[in-house]
Amino acid sequence: MKSPDDLFPSMSIAALRARYRAGSLTPAQLVDAIAARTSGDDPHHAWIRPLSRAEMMRYADALEGRDMDTLPLYGVPFAIKDNIDLAGIPTTAACPAYAYTPTASAAVVARLIAAGAIPIGKTNLDQFATGLSGQRSPHGACRNALDRRYASGGSSSGSAVSVALGLAAFSLGTDTAGSGRVPAAFHGLIGLKPTKGVLSTLGVVPACKSLDCVSIFARSASDAQCVFDAARGVTAEDPYAREFQPPQTSAPLATQASLRGVRFGVPRASQLEFFGDASYAHAFDAALTCLRAAGAELIEIDFEPFLATARLLYEGPWVAERLAAIREFVDTQPDALHPVIREIIGGAARWSAADAFAAFDRLAFLRMQAADVWQRIDAIVTPTSATTATVDELEADPIRVNSRFGYYTNFVNLLDLSALAVPAGVCTVGKHAGLPFGVTFVARAHEDAMLLDLARAWLDESNEIDKIDERAAVPTFAHDATAVRPGESHGRH
Amino acid sequence: MKSPDDLFPSMSIAALRARYRAGSLTPAQLVDAIAARTSGDDPHHAWIRPLSRAEMMRYADALEGRDMDTLPLYGVPFAIKDNIDLAGIPTTAACPAYAYTPTASAAVVARLIAAGAIPIGKTNLDQFATGLSGQRSPHGACRNALDRRYASGGSSSGSAVSVALGLAAFSLGTDTAGSGRVPAAFHGLIGLKPTKGVLSTLGVVPACKSLDCVSIFARSASDAQCVFDAARGVTAEDPYAREFQPPQTSAPLATQASLRGVRFGVPRASQLEFFGDASYAHAFDAALTCLRAAGAELIEIDFEPFLATARLLYEGPWVAERLAAIREFVDTQPDALHPVIREIIGGAARWSAADAFAAFDRLAFLRMQAADVWQRIDAIVTPTSATTATVDELEADPIRVNSRFGYYTNFVNLLDLSALAVPAGVCTVGKHAGLPFGVTFVARAHEDAMLLDLARAWLDESNEIDKIDERAAVPTFAHDATAVRPGESHGRH
Repeated sequence: MKSPDDLFPSMSIAALRARYRAGSLTPAQLVDAIAARTSGDDPHHAWIRPLSRAEMMRYADALEGRDMDTLPLYGVPFAIKDNIDLAGIPTTAACPAYAYTPTASAAVVARLIAAGAIPIGKTNLDQFATGLSGQRSPHGACRNALDRRYASGGSSSGSAVSVALGLAAFSLGTDTAGSGRVPAAFHGLIGLKPTKGVLSTLGVVPACKSLDCVSIFARSASDAQCVFDAARGVTAEDPYAREFQPPQTSAPLATQASLRGVRFGVPRASQLEFFGDASYAHAFDAALTCLRAAGAELIEIDFEPFLATARLLYEGPWVAERLAAIREFVDTQPDALHPVIREIIGGAARWSAADAFAAFDRLAFLRMQAADVWQRIDAIVTPTSATTATVDELEADPIRVNSRFGYYTNFVNLLDLSALAVPAGVCTVGKHAGLPFGVTFVARAHEDAMLLDLARAWLDESNEIDKIDERAAVPTFAHDATAVRPGESHGRH
Repeated sequence: MKSPDDLFPSMSIAALRARYRAGSLTPAQLVDAIAARTSGDDPHHAWIRPLSRAEMMRYADALEGRDMDTLPLYGVPFAIKDNIDLAGIPTTAACPAYAYTPTASAAVVARLIAAGAIPIGKTNLDQFATGLSGQRSPHGACRNALDRRYASGGSSSGSAVSVALGLAAFSLGTDTAGSGRVPAAFHGLIGLKPTKGVLSTLGVVPACKSLDCVSIFARSASDAQCVFDAARGVTAEDPYAREFQPPQTSAPLATQASLRGVRFGVPRASQLEFFGDASYAHAFDAALTCLRAAGAELIEIDFEPFLATARLLYEGPWVAERLAAIREFVDTQPDALHPVIREIIGGAARWSAADAFAAFDRLAFLRMQAADVWQRIDAIVTPTSATTATVDELEADPIRVNSRFGYYTNFVNLLDLSALAVPAGVCTVGKHAGLPFGVTFVARAHEDAMLLDLARAWLDESNEIDKIDERAAVPTFAHDATAVRPGESHGRH
């Protein structure tokens, strides 16, 4: 299995810090390099609003004279999905008519900036975060950073692309039904969908308020952990905020930093679905083989309660929560919506409150059924997406193809679980050969840190920071940032 | 303040146990005495289906040879609201066309029977537990045990009446919006609305499934505690079950058994509402004076978030949850519903799923606002009902008068709080003079035991069990059970 470093240039938090510490790079130099890239063409349609050099430089300037040791994200550039507020920059949710300019940043953004991070722009998304494809935007279909013919995944499409292109060290997405995981899988990235409520959604345009999570794209589990730690914290005035309450122990994970003895639940073969895609089916088999070789225990589980929950989200009344969140806008400016979004959210009007309550009752039952599994396993492992698709395939059949991407993601927030999308090499057979494949580890609420430990062991990152610190003096930043040019790398044409 | 023993005959758990232990009473003798009463006239319309002597005797017989010390409710008679299953007896929810005969008892009923309790009958209720008056039943308006011109309160009307008449030592109700508290107040009883989920609702006809609680009527806090302890426990197959997790300490309550230093939140005067009723306004003032005299600290709180939550339940989409629970029945047999219930539940069809989600979002905000108060207080004290009313007054204006009873109760389950209705003497002025008045102590989830401690201190029950054990040999059961005759007592005519 290839590691993420084989696929992408190195712009890790540890590498940046090592360079800053060594004096071989300054935040201002970094801003210059990023501005040179983001101010030019955007063939992936990754950006809705990249920050100007001057706008970025204000954040870099604010770091002058500050002590790096007190700022865990000192000079670390990050991209922000354009449904999350950045003070002074319009938030559009990919719907220009909906735009507003917030005076304050979203709670998580404010925390990251306070930790030293530098925002570099607002990224493209499926409008109102409704989709898993990245194609439902008036700013153009967001294209895969590794092969522009392919979908980026969504709805946090541009945020994934910006990290995959090496422009940002990490980025913020949102994840209601899989929007922070599917684009990670399509780009060989880490995608952390944290426990609901532990990252505040204050200052985020709601999709389904009761399910929305802010998510993190990063190139390594260590970076994701670092961002997760900086982004958390008590947020007054957020009705959906929850205190992070990690379990006291999660042996054998915390101590061993190995997968030996870790019990992974795997859906029965008959419950796996790849929609005829041999590339992904083969890659998932390979991933399971790797897990087994690493000493993990694979335990077959009945995945039906999870799949039934996923269907409930997709076929049930939760779409009305999306309508409720932007009802006045939808009522007054229906034509301002992307046609696919209008079809989906407009369809929500058919659900009655009694339907909603019936679905909640069904969910309560499924949640009870699904909970049984945790007595036997530490985490579930599934493919992150059931398949991938080209932009053309999605445009021909936008709703059905999109839904395939959510087969393994839709249940997670309804069941109040944490999830981490992790790279699992590249497809080696079938029509998607050469594209990355990803799996997702799923655990109970508040087990985010355990998932990150599992990912570190899976990616053999246990000594990553040391290794990067050793390498850091060799390549210059400028070399790294331009090492991958859109569409040129990774053996895809 | 009068104690409950001044109002009602003694049929406490401790008294019964003392008699059983002394050999002055057997469960079979008790069943005989109860059957003699419940097989006759029912001028209060308390019963839908009293058990026959033979049906009760089976439970008494099962106790033969059993060790009292292993059965905390040995030979204790209890009544069951007729929306809670008792094996072999029809459950009707006060809607004969809806009736079914369960083969198993509800989880809580099974636990109580296993602890030695003897079921004596299924009690009248507002149909489908929808109401706070006790008048919405095809079996006749349930009338107050203390003055038949007055409403019993509902929806757990017959359960309260059966305890007030001294026929049952305790009874089970359900409480979604106040149904376990209002009838307690109208009869000078203890009404425990436990933390949601800690008493299983498995085998209970749903009203609002996400809010429903099984409630307990008793004549003392000690008895309520005893029943609460026996009724709790892990219930597999109940999606709404929650483990009871009492806080580790709740000083100064647990140790002192006194109200000294306990911080009670009291709504601002402008937020109190009595609908012009001088009796209740005066009685609440008197109760506050008593609390203050007992050393409690009264702290004014902003009650608006609680009132806004109450309005949300009453004016919002939760009624659609009632519809969802019995939708097929309502669709196929609309004429089988009581006219008032048909009007209320039928009206639920106007709410959309988007309305429901908007209301949940509003609730999340109000819950956050309301939670602030707990940093300053241990419990809230309010009147249980804002006023009372006669059966005639309710029949003239069934929805509006009913809603007044819920002014102080509707918010509790939406905010996931525990509540305990406790007697607070009798009204001494105004048109309801001579009728009992009650207050409710409200606390956070899982603080039920603290509420019961407060009630014990409030009612000066600290040595109640000892006192009763001393008295137990003097009055015989037969004397007690007939001491109060319907409509004859308590100075009401």
